[in-house]
Amino acid sequence: MCTSSHGDAAPVSTVVADTKADATAPDPRLVADLVTANRILFDQHVVDAFGHASVRHDKRPDRFLLARSMAPALVTAADILEFDLDGNPLAAHGRPVYLERFIHGEIYRARPDVVAVVHSHSHAVIPFGVVRSHKLRAIFHMSGFVGVDTPIFEIRDCVGDGSDLLIRNRELGAALVKSLGQKSVVLMRGHGMTVTAPNLPDAVYRGVYVDINARLQLEAIGLGAVNYLTESEGRATAAAQASQVGRAWDMWKMKVEGKL
Amino acid sequence: MCTSSHGDAAPVSTVVADTKADATAPDPRLVADLVTANRILFDQHVVDAFGHASVRHDKRPDRFLLARSMAPALVTAADILEFDLDGNPLAAHGRPVYLERFIHGEIYRARPDVVAVVHSHSHAVIPFGVVRSHKLRAIFHMSGFVGVDTPIFEIRDCVGDGSDLLIRNRELGAALVKSLGQKSVVLMRGHGMTVTAPNLPDAVYRGVYVDINARLQLEAIGLGAVNYLTESEGRATAAAQASQVGRAWDMWKMKVEGKL
Amino acid sequence: MCTSSHGDAAPVSTVVADTKADATAPDPRLVADLVTANRILFDQHVVDAFGHASVRHDKRPDRFLLARSMAPALVTAADILEFDLDGNPLAAHGRPVYLERFIHGEIYRARPDVVAVVHSHSHAVIPFGVVRSHKLRAIFHMSGFVGVDTPIFEIRDCVGDGSDLLIRNRELGAALVKSLGQKSVVLMRGHGMTVTAPNLPDAVYRGVYVDINARLQLEAIGLGAVNYLTESEGRATAAAQASQVGRAWDMWKMKVEGKL
Amino acid sequence: MCTSSHGDAAPVSTVVADTKADATAPDPRLVADLVTANRILFDQHVVDAFGHASVRHDKRPDRFLLARSMAPALVTAADILEFDLDGNPLAAHGRPVYLERFIHGEIYRARPDVVAVVHSHSHAVIPFGVVRSHKLRAIFHMSGFVGVDTPIFEIRDCVGDGSDLLIRNRELGAALVKSLGQKSVVLMRGHGMTVTAPNLPDAVYRGVYVDINARLQLEAIGLGAVNYLTESEGRATAAAQASQVGRAWDMWKMKVEGKL
Repeated sequence: MCTSSHGDAAPVSTVVADTKADATAPDPRLVADLVTANRILFDQHVVDAFGHASVRHDKRPDRFLLARSMAPALVTAADILEFDLDGNPLAAHGRPVYLERFIHGEIYRARPDVVAVVHSHSHAVIPFGVVRSHKLRAIFHMSGFVGVDTPIFEIRDCVGDGSDLLIRNRELGAALVKSLGQKSVVLMRGHGMTVTAPNLPDAVYRGVYVDINARLQLEAIGLGAVNYLTESEGRATAAAQASQVGRAWDMWKMKVEGKL
Repeated sequence: MCTSSHGDAAPVSTVVADTKADATAPDPRLVADLVTANRILFDQHVVDAFGHASVRHDKRPDRFLLARSMAPALVTAADILEFDLDGNPLAAHGRPVYLERFIHGEIYRARPDVVAVVHSHSHAVIPFGVVRSHKLRAIFHMSGFVGVDTPIFEIRDCVGDGSDLLIRNRELGAALVKSLGQKSVVLMRGHGMTVTAPNLPDAVYRGVYVDINARLQLEAIGLGAVNYLTESEGRATAAAQASQVGRAWDMWKMKVEGKL
Repeated sequence: MCTSSHGDAAPVSTVVADTKADATAPDPRLVADLVTANRILFDQHVVDAFGHASVRHDKRPDRFLLARSMAPALVTAADILEFDLDGNPLAAHGRPVYLERFIHGEIYRARPDVVAVVHSHSHAVIPFGVVRSHKLRAIFHMSGFVGVDTPIFEIRDCVGDGSDLLIRNRELGAALVKSLGQKSVVLMRGHGMTVTAPNLPDAVYRGVYVDINARLQLEAIGLGAVNYLTESEGRATAAAQASQVGRAWDMWKMKVEGKL
Repeated sequence: MCTSSHGDAAPVSTVVADTKADATAPDPRLVADLVTANRILFDQHVVDAFGHASVRHDKRPDRFLLARSMAPALVTAADILEFDLDGNPLAAHGRPVYLERFIHGEIYRARPDVVAVVHSHSHAVIPFGVVRSHKLRAIFHMSGFVGVDTPIFEIRDCVGDGSDLLIRNRELGAALVKSLGQKSVVLMRGHGMTVTAPNLPDAVYRGVYVDINARLQLEAIGLGAVNYLTESEGRATAAAQASQVGRAWDMWKMKVEGKL
């Protein structure tokens, strides 16, 4: 069943008081990193014109940063907006916002450990969201964070047949979070996936490698019975790789900056 | 059976009076968009040296715009010709025209709702045109327009064995339209596909995502039983995405213009 | 059995009298086209550092043009050598030549209709050379030249186990030609393929599309029973496409010249 | 069982006396080649931000050269460090080193014939490391060095469940070498592969083609029963290709230097 853990979804107000100038403005370096994250995700084929990345506000944990509605490849610092956890943008000044910002807000509300979120329709994960006979799980040490049993969010369990599959409100966001539980990745049937991480470079890393994992898993399944990472190997490799993410982030960043 | 809905195909005249200078010349912005569409379709691997895109004339619904016979990647505004619905070019001035222009003319004749058409041999759709055991259908929300049951045009039903598979005349164009019916996509066995849309950016979007859908569907079928979008989910997602197409078009346009 | 149609293979002499200056020097435009062909084949992923393309001499049908032993992507006009049909280079001036030049010489000897030859290890054709349960055959109109039954050359039938699989001499070249027969394409088990054509642009076109055909066929076979082109459809589509090859050649040429 | 052939692993000292200035400094051309190898491996998609290549010291066979811990694409001559066979860096000056340098040290210790080593997580080899029903073996003449029976290193046999799969010490390095035996390639379950060669260009060549071989083998297995290279064909093709590696190396080098 699809029930959310909170009762009353606040009505979405599209303009809230601007807080940019006050002492709780986000660190400009965090904003710059979010711009870089958007560009890396496009360059690494995790997002195309669709999909988005967010990061929790560094001074106000009840807020998060997310671009206005636009192609990730084109995002600049001026396009980064602040949102409260209900998904209300602060100082959008009439600029359209992503329909699915509730994915981010509800995850930040329910999961204090999460600092960054990537939502994508990256290609290799789609088959694992629409087929039940094989679960998406970690196949190599680069993607230990995938674990052994990736949940699938089925929106039909919430709203029945006929939806547009989008996470258009807090209720659907909360239902997605319920599927996610304490995991890092949740597949969304006929739609894509959402991945969480304790920091922005790790969220980008996970967005990239969950797709690679899915591709390799699909191929391995075609070859024969697969010897997957165990649960404890998943934990150990995830911990080991977490210390190495900077190596990938730095290179990907140089690449989108034209320095590689 | 392959019968066309019209009786008498007019003989093709290759030169008709030039109407470029009169008050019914197409909007130059529409011509520019058609040039952009050609370049995007190449850049996104929907067409290679072959395949074509057209748009209905904005002032004369009984005419359409299509490049002269050439590689889409090289099309400029000067290469865009006007055609009547019988497939006769106006003011071609001896320049060769696409053999298969009848695909476009017959669709515009039979489907007043259609404003743009893309014909391609994009790779992932080919297997679905030559295999009957799995129908091409929408697997994720980005391609809800594909629906649940894509028709396949079998030219052998019209002309028997031994044809070159091309839509070389009005009769074959009309037969293709009959297979298409009121759908957005028709597969052509051993040849490619044709997709229709209510505007040019949407036709390009559909040309891109029908191929992605086919690729993902092929992979998912290899994995297990597929939970496809239902008919009403297809309609709802298609409506939702129609409002977002500009985001993709704008980015793709920047890319072919070297700004990304 | 692997027997060649000629009896005595002339010993390979690596230096023969230079004939460049005489009246039978090849047309410089043909040499330039062969350079372009080499670069296109690399750019289109038909060859990597290995594989080669040749063209029959335009004034002396008993000779052919082929680069010295080098990566196709780097070939310039100065690297094009003249060979006699026995595979002897004229005026190589000590420069190394391809070990497998006998593929070309023996085809030109046996097939007066052939004007250009491409030999590659392009990826998608390899599986069809090592698996007997599915024959490589035309799946769409772009590759009608593939026909319905592509022969496989098995070098073990000639020299038994333990060879390096290369066509190192006239006898092996002649045996390959025997497998090829009057077809356009011959697969070479565990090695690659060789394709013939009546002119150089068509040989390049066929090198590109035989690989695409193989890729699409592999995918279609995974999907279900395939409705292939019939023999007469193969002939009709090959004839139709032959008239359109220039469209691809011109675009590919612009691409390798950095104009696209 | 996973037992190593040596008894006492020396404790890792992170700083050893600098020997750069003495008469046994490596040939600068060898260092330059190792930089080139790193860049080629990235450009050819064998490594991403992870994976590494080494070469045995040309004057001291008890030492090897390997970059400090960083993305291979960014390596310059200043990043190349010298290591002893125990995996101790000389003159690292506090710079972090690869966790898995023991792969290299233990191979150079046990295999005097080996001059260069590449360790990668290249995508196509992963399925063959996690599936036992099909062994990775040579499918075409470009990869005869793969042979007929590639060993798989299973780290669980050494340390049980719960490791991070990395070769973090001499014992694990020695165990990997035991799996490798006298072969060129060893797969590492859920991790990647390591390939050895008698020189650096050949190690790069093998890193590239072992991945291509895996890709083609996966596809061929999906098509039907595969006619692989025999053991003697593998040896003969490997010997033949060894003489041609320069052609690939020179082209790949020009490509990473922006000259192609």
